[in-house]
Amino acid sequence: MRWWGWGDPQHAPGLPPHALRFLRETVGVGAKPCPPVALEHVKIDPQSIPSITLDRLREILGSEHVRDDHADRVVHAAGKGYPDLVRMRAGAPAGAPDAVLYPSSHEQLRELLSACARDSLAVVPFGGGTSVVGGVQPLRGPHRGVVALDMCRMASVLELDDTSLMVRVQAGARARELERWLAGRGLTLGHFPQSFEYVSLGGCAATRSAGQASTGYGRFERMVQGLRMVAPAGDVELPALPASAAGPGMREVLVGSEGTLGVIDELALRVRRAPSERIYEGVFFESFQAGVQAFRELAQRHAAPDVARLSDELQTRMSIALAGSGGAKGRLGRAYLGVRGYASGCLAILGFEGEPREVSERRARALQVVRRGGGLCVGRSPGRAWLASRFSAPYLRDELLTHGVMVETLETATRWSNVEALHRRVLGAIDDSLRACGTPGLVMCHVSHLYETGASLYFTFLAPQKEGGELAQWQAVKVAASAAILDGGGTITHHHAVGRDHAPWMEREIGGEGVRALRALKAELDPAGIMNPGKLLPDGWS
Amino acid sequence: MRWWGWGDPQHAPGLPPHALRFLRETVGVGAKPCPPVALEHVKIDPQSIPSITLDRLREILGSEHVRDDHADRVVHAAGKGYPDLVRMRAGAPAGAPDAVLYPSSHEQLRELLSACARDSLAVVPFGGGTSVVGGVQPLRGPHRGVVALDMCRMASVLELDDTSLMVRVQAGARARELERWLAGRGLTLGHFPQSFEYVSLGGCAATRSAGQASTGYGRFERMVQGLRMVAPAGDVELPALPASAAGPGMREVLVGSEGTLGVIDELALRVRRAPSERIYEGVFFESFQAGVQAFRELAQRHAAPDVARLSDELQTRMSIALAGSGGAKGRLGRAYLGVRGYASGCLAILGFEGEPREVSERRARALQVVRRGGGLCVGRSPGRAWLASRFSAPYLRDELLTHGVMVETLETATRWSNVEALHRRVLGAIDDSLRACGTPGLVMCHVSHLYETGASLYFTFLAPQKEGGELAQWQAVKVAASAAILDGGGTITHHHAVGRDHAPWMEREIGGEGVRALRALKAELDPAGIMNPGKLLPDGWS
Repeated sequence: MRWWGWGDPQHAPGLPPHALRFLRETVGVGAKPCPPVALEHVKIDPQSIPSITLDRLREILGSEHVRDDHADRVVHAAGKGYPDLVRMRAGAPAGAPDAVLYPSSHEQLRELLSACARDSLAVVPFGGGTSVVGGVQPLRGPHRGVVALDMCRMASVLELDDTSLMVRVQAGARARELERWLAGRGLTLGHFPQSFEYVSLGGCAATRSAGQASTGYGRFERMVQGLRMVAPAGDVELPALPASAAGPGMREVLVGSEGTLGVIDELALRVRRAPSERIYEGVFFESFQAGVQAFRELAQRHAAPDVARLSDELQTRMSIALAGSGGAKGRLGRAYLGVRGYASGCLAILGFEGEPREVSERRARALQVVRRGGGLCVGRSPGRAWLASRFSAPYLRDELLTHGVMVETLETATRWSNVEALHRRVLGAIDDSLRACGTPGLVMCHVSHLYETGASLYFTFLAPQKEGGELAQWQAVKVAASAAILDGGGTITHHHAVGRDHAPWMEREIGGEGVRALRALKAELDPAGIMNPGKLLPDGWS
Repeated sequence: MRWWGWGDPQHAPGLPPHALRFLRETVGVGAKPCPPVALEHVKIDPQSIPSITLDRLREILGSEHVRDDHADRVVHAAGKGYPDLVRMRAGAPAGAPDAVLYPSSHEQLRELLSACARDSLAVVPFGGGTSVVGGVQPLRGPHRGVVALDMCRMASVLELDDTSLMVRVQAGARARELERWLAGRGLTLGHFPQSFEYVSLGGCAATRSAGQASTGYGRFERMVQGLRMVAPAGDVELPALPASAAGPGMREVLVGSEGTLGVIDELALRVRRAPSERIYEGVFFESFQAGVQAFRELAQRHAAPDVARLSDELQTRMSIALAGSGGAKGRLGRAYLGVRGYASGCLAILGFEGEPREVSERRARALQVVRRGGGLCVGRSPGRAWLASRFSAPYLRDELLTHGVMVETLETATRWSNVEALHRRVLGAIDDSLRACGTPGLVMCHVSHLYETGASLYFTFLAPQKEGGELAQWQAVKVAASAAILDGGGTITHHHAVGRDHAPWMEREIGGEGVRALRALKAELDPAGIMNPGKLLPDGWS
């Protein structure tokens, strides 16, 4: 993974000329491209852990698995949020771990946490490093040093129970690797977040991840049947069960704990038979309102596809424009927009997966609902285009940053009766705050992740970067959007998690007593407070 | 509700002669019927709360809503578990609350909890009083007295969001009342535990209830979108959201807390459009194994009905025998058993609910799976018979107790690959322990509540009561069955909850560190330890 941005270092850069032209006309781009600095020019403080302490860690792991070289520390200095990228590209991350630890066993994990607690080292669990909310920021809190705990060596598939459709894995395994392993056995996990190619399964559990197909396959926490967390106070091991009424939901407490209570090192996950048929297609709605109503009907009539995404008017226009003159979406857009009364229409992608008969029946029911709601089926090209580019947005973001364009996403969920009002409110708040910064931009949204009672709203905005004030600009918009979300009846996060960025809003989300309950849990499981300080709650739990 | 047993005091008693004959031949019944003592002969200790303390409670609630008369205290002295009934019928409950409190508002609840904490009164939240695991036993723990907090006056529907299919209710509302209210609006909650006619919604949330139609409608915790808990330390109020990634699952922690952290006083619940079609029918499988395999296929192919119940061989024979010579089940049983090679067959009930087209498609897919698995459709009579008697087992239990027959149920859940082995193990353990008591009996089971990765197993056993040693006899079987469940890879409870009866097994279920994490939560939310002492954890948390 590129240390300064997303993905495979071999991935070819390059924004198509028509897209750059579009951006220049609509958003404004920088005078000249601004690439990231070279790795060796990234400035981080010297590591500060006493060598006697490092030696103890080396005794546990073997010296080659305790790394404090410049490159390793830089790679683990940040996640992939907008502020992370701004800082990294400038060669000035907000700190770096003093060392990076690579355990390979449960026993090593136990010993490491004991050693870190004894020696006052903060521990930042690190899976794929894909957090977009500051979840892996190497904060030391009140401790003498901070280490990144990279789980990449604990990535084995441990056991497949083919009868129960459950797989037991080490939490460092990546979603893509497990998906490949399962594919060879006719199975799928069905978890496809945008970070799919890099994200670790432990990270998905720790952050309550929801993939692009969560409408059909469920959120990651629904896949978790059992898990083990290695906490400084001891292991919490919850057996793999389909359901239980044995008291408060301990699985649900550990899922979503974001490394602040301990490190999840094993997971038992529900899998499914791999679909033999996949149909992804496009539908146009006359308006966002019409699309939202149809999506609600789909969810409430149990006729929803596995993937359901509805772009609002601006996002629809943007995706057609950026897809370009040669693309399938472009042709389709031109073919329908204007000539069919959908000049300001909204594009939806519906994806169905399963056995052919099941797909056929479900699709027929869904399209009936869609047509009744005024939806116009526009064939499979938009679906294919979406599938082909479903993991590419982070690459595009890097390109935009090179051209001085700020691009950021944020997301929430709310009940159906509030979806349109919240959409307007958050769009307005982002728009206003960008204007107030003197950098008006484009703000758009899609609805995805359908539930019977509501759905998620995923906002994307682009604006010219405020040179020299990039982080303040981002902070102003983030605060405005977060306030609008909570004032407007949404959750501060539907699937990006809390990390550092949303921590200031947790008390509004779960209340003062809810926060105190979390603190009590933390005090029990992590009495020295070494686990991922500063995340989840604003003051790092204390 | 009858204080000594189940249900409407007007409900006519009477076990049909053929059923009594069958029981006499197979289990053995007492020499003569043994009815419960009269209410006035029930012995409870005088209430022990100082009158100055009671006066303070009366100031909060009004004097008519603080009751310490004999009848009120007896009615709140126990739930509806087997040991509860044995003790109550004999006129010797294991204690009674000193007083019964009937709050009518959130403000009163807050004041009551403050007063009880100050005056060292244990508080037992009381909804429908239907716990079968000792969940409402009036234990005072280390406190000076114990009060039952009856929620029956907080039973209003507060708000219906018809667009989002969410209803906000006070937690004292009963499942049946809400279902009636919703039916008038074309809606349903879809939660039908056997206790449906009496259970409160707050009780369902506090115990992670699962209804008979949970395969289709989901467990109660899936219905809870938001809730408020009044804890001694303060309110925890979680807004109604379809989903969130904002940290550990606080909703899931409060759901399942069984009154030990606080009192749930409001719930936001997901509802559904009421089905316009209901088809309930019977299917015979050659063996339990064949039935389990077919049920697994149904769940994993997403073709499961809303209600799915598979009786093992003995339960099938018993239900046919008890249904009697005149009943539809009896005729059907005779028609098929023997003549179609299903002499030792297993009866399954499949229930489909929804819109006609949806039901038709889902049913066709399900029956295809069933037939491929060797299932023989036997029409709708068994389904109708099951629907007609779905809430009547607790009445039957009272009849059996009158005739000196012990009848008890216990339940678990496990992964599919383990269902048959766990079935054998628990049957064997119960059977052995009944023999060891000198009271061999009948032990049977059904599978219900299907999940993709596993299912629940629900055991019922009948044996002659050991006169004078009824509770020791029960305890011996309970311990043997619980050990077999945990040794065999099941959960100690799938939907009956923990209460008093399963508390000794919680540490095996969630581990020592899991238990300590719960204690930490408890210490924060209920620092004086007044909430439902002795439940959930064996020593009452401390």
